[in-house]
Amino acid sequence: MSSLHSFCHSFLSFFLSFHFLLLYFTMHRLLSTVNGWKMKMMKKGESDARSVPIQIQPKQYCLYQFLLDRLHIRRILPFGFPTICPVRIRKSYVAGVDMAKKIPFFVAEAYSSSLLKALESRNASRNKCRFVADPTVPDKYAAKNEDYLRSGLSRGHMAPAGAQKTMSEMQDSFNLTTNILPQDFDCNAFLWRRLEHWTKEISVNHQGVYVISGPIFRPQEGTNCVEYQVIGKGRVAVPTHLFKVILTKDKKSWYSRAKYSMAAYVVPNAPIVISTPLNEIEVSIDSLEEQTGMYFHPKLDRSRVVMHLQDQEPAAMDPQHIEWASKDIQYARSLWFLKMLEERYQRQGLMKDGTVQMAMKQQKKKLNWNARKKVVSYFLPTSVKDAIYVCGSIAACVAGGWYYGN
Amino acid sequence: MSSLHSFCHSFLSFFLSFHFLLLYFTMHRLLSTVNGWKMKMMKKGESDARSVPIQIQPKQYCLYQFLLDRLHIRRILPFGFPTICPVRIRKSYVAGVDMAKKIPFFVAEAYSSSLLKALESRNASRNKCRFVADPTVPDKYAAKNEDYLRSGLSRGHMAPAGAQKTMSEMQDSFNLTTNILPQDFDCNAFLWRRLEHWTKEISVNHQGVYVISGPIFRPQEGTNCVEYQVIGKGRVAVPTHLFKVILTKDKKSWYSRAKYSMAAYVVPNAPIVISTPLNEIEVSIDSLEEQTGMYFHPKLDRSRVVMHLQDQEPAAMDPQHIEWASKDIQYARSLWFLKMLEERYQRQGLMKDGTVQMAMKQQKKKLNWNARKKVVSYFLPTSVKDAIYVCGSIAACVAGGWYYGN
Repeated sequence: MSSLHSFCHSFLSFFLSFHFLLLYFTMHRLLSTVNGWKMKMMKKGESDARSVPIQIQPKQYCLYQFLLDRLHIRRILPFGFPTICPVRIRKSYVAGVDMAKKIPFFVAEAYSSSLLKALESRNASRNKCRFVADPTVPDKYAAKNEDYLRSGLSRGHMAPAGAQKTMSEMQDSFNLTTNILPQDFDCNAFLWRRLEHWTKEISVNHQGVYVISGPIFRPQEGTNCVEYQVIGKGRVAVPTHLFKVILTKDKKSWYSRAKYSMAAYVVPNAPIVISTPLNEIEVSIDSLEEQTGMYFHPKLDRSRVVMHLQDQEPAAMDPQHIEWASKDIQYARSLWFLKMLEERYQRQGLMKDGTVQMAMKQQKKKLNWNARKKVVSYFLPTSVKDAIYVCGSIAACVAGGWYYGN
Repeated sequence: MSSLHSFCHSFLSFFLSFHFLLLYFTMHRLLSTVNGWKMKMMKKGESDARSVPIQIQPKQYCLYQFLLDRLHIRRILPFGFPTICPVRIRKSYVAGVDMAKKIPFFVAEAYSSSLLKALESRNASRNKCRFVADPTVPDKYAAKNEDYLRSGLSRGHMAPAGAQKTMSEMQDSFNLTTNILPQDFDCNAFLWRRLEHWTKEISVNHQGVYVISGPIFRPQEGTNCVEYQVIGKGRVAVPTHLFKVILTKDKKSWYSRAKYSMAAYVVPNAPIVISTPLNEIEVSIDSLEEQTGMYFHPKLDRSRVVMHLQDQEPAAMDPQHIEWASKDIQYARSLWFLKMLEERYQRQGLMKDGTVQMAMKQQKKKLNWNARKKVVSYFLPTSVKDAIYVCGSIAACVAGGWYYGN
């Protein structure tokens, strides 16, 4: 009995150890094969410096090396890597937070024709939303609404507030730390808005449009010095430029793979004319990556990508801009603001248009009339106002009594 | 037979589906339990704002939510997150690369008494190493040696070159992109060096010393403007300050858990006197984290940590500094450089010491003698030099012949 027992024991232990070995070798084999593929892919794109996948370890990366690295990291950083760019996942965008500058590193969104259809029947309104600091980011890393007040800069959305379906999603886009950065008023209202609108428009013709936006801190032209402002008590950094990287995926047919196109746009964070053609603000992905220090879409094989968007918007004045301008004029609530708007549109060359001129005239008339009414009510003595009020009420009572009496 | 077959089939399918369900619920249960622990731990440290673990999702994070998030990210960023801070794992340090500024975000190292013992018997020399760009970082993100030349700034090691055991490890520490940033000569040679030396020294009394170093870009005092230089063609950023976060782990005894202490030091990237007491450059972890935008040691429970290092170095002049100064003087190869050194030591208050004065005198004498020799050999006509050489050789031949003849 004892011999049988020992035999069973030895057999079992042998069996188990054999299986563990088998498992190890299989895993090892599998990983090396995958690595081989990766290396082949890397070699394929070697002539193109941009296609080096920098997240992958450059040498043959086997299971043994992987485990060794984990141990090594545990020895040097027993409590994990310092958090530098925490990622926040929201319904309509994904953002990486730059906790030193208190603005996003990048904000990514995706458009599709189905999303656009859903947006048409949405019931969210931006008037009911308010700017809040991100509650999931500790206080010392988050921008506050007070930092932006009286800075002379607008709170520029990276993922536009018009791309959210429900009210809670809309509130997400008003999140100061993860979606908003200090942006020049004119830049925000004109060229950047046009770029956002155009991105939405082209998504009708594509299977998917993937947009990444964010800030750039670039040295002044001709100097060896980077200089940027910080605003408020929280010292929120004001970027010198803003970027947008647009990746489009074409509808694939039964005889070919999906085609990708990619383009990058850089807009200075300063007043810039709305009718600037998009070709002028387009830059190469390479130079943008050098400026931002990011590598966009790392798993994309760039040898398959066309490095230019085919459907560039025409440079001429768009009827959309006229519509926006007229709407903004109608929302003006004071003559001072209207005058500022007029100056701004003069600079943008929008005042030449008849519709804008008309809207401006009407709004001016309306506001002037309101102002006159205010002046009259201010100078009328209180006793006269009271008398009118009392007479009116008495007349109403009398009229009512007469009506019921009949 | 057929009925038996169908019975078996239904039984098996039921059995399998039941097991899958069981597996799912077990996983779910397990994850929620772990999350419960995490939440409890979070609640424990809630009074301390610093102990919010910002990498953990704030809400109850179940398997379902996790899978949903993965799907969501796949929809918005189908080719992965933009690479912002790639990590490089080297034998003696772990570094995060800031690809926009072409310097490290942070460099982490760990010291222990066993490492110090190993360092005593090492055979690596820094003279044989040369500065290279990181080959695993694409060209456009990497600093070159030429960027540093003629900039008036030194190549400051974050993980010091004296903490490597073998030659290949030593070469790692000369890696421009992952371990080096532009540092002021005086800062690098005096206070920063003293800080590095002190870190190594205290590791004798502790079970482990974990050091994280890196750059800070801070607005000028009293202004709302961040301004920093960029050097070379590659536009390598020059930080305004440097930081060092030191975490020590005390030897644990049989009756208590291991004790941790933590402290942060900030040194301006400018000439600073070597005898500055460490208390003066110590800052709170909180304020450092706000400046750098990093959260250090995220998995560490900070309610267990003493926020001050007990063994601060005395402020008085250390014999070590005298030794360094004398060595540097002996390595001087020109009178011009010696004069620069003298001025520098005057500023640091090191010239009052007798040993340094002695070394300076000797080196001056030696260099003067060398200079005189050079002058003599310069003005001696070539024919005379040749004659001396020929006479010498003939005399040697004659002497040799005479010796062998005897």
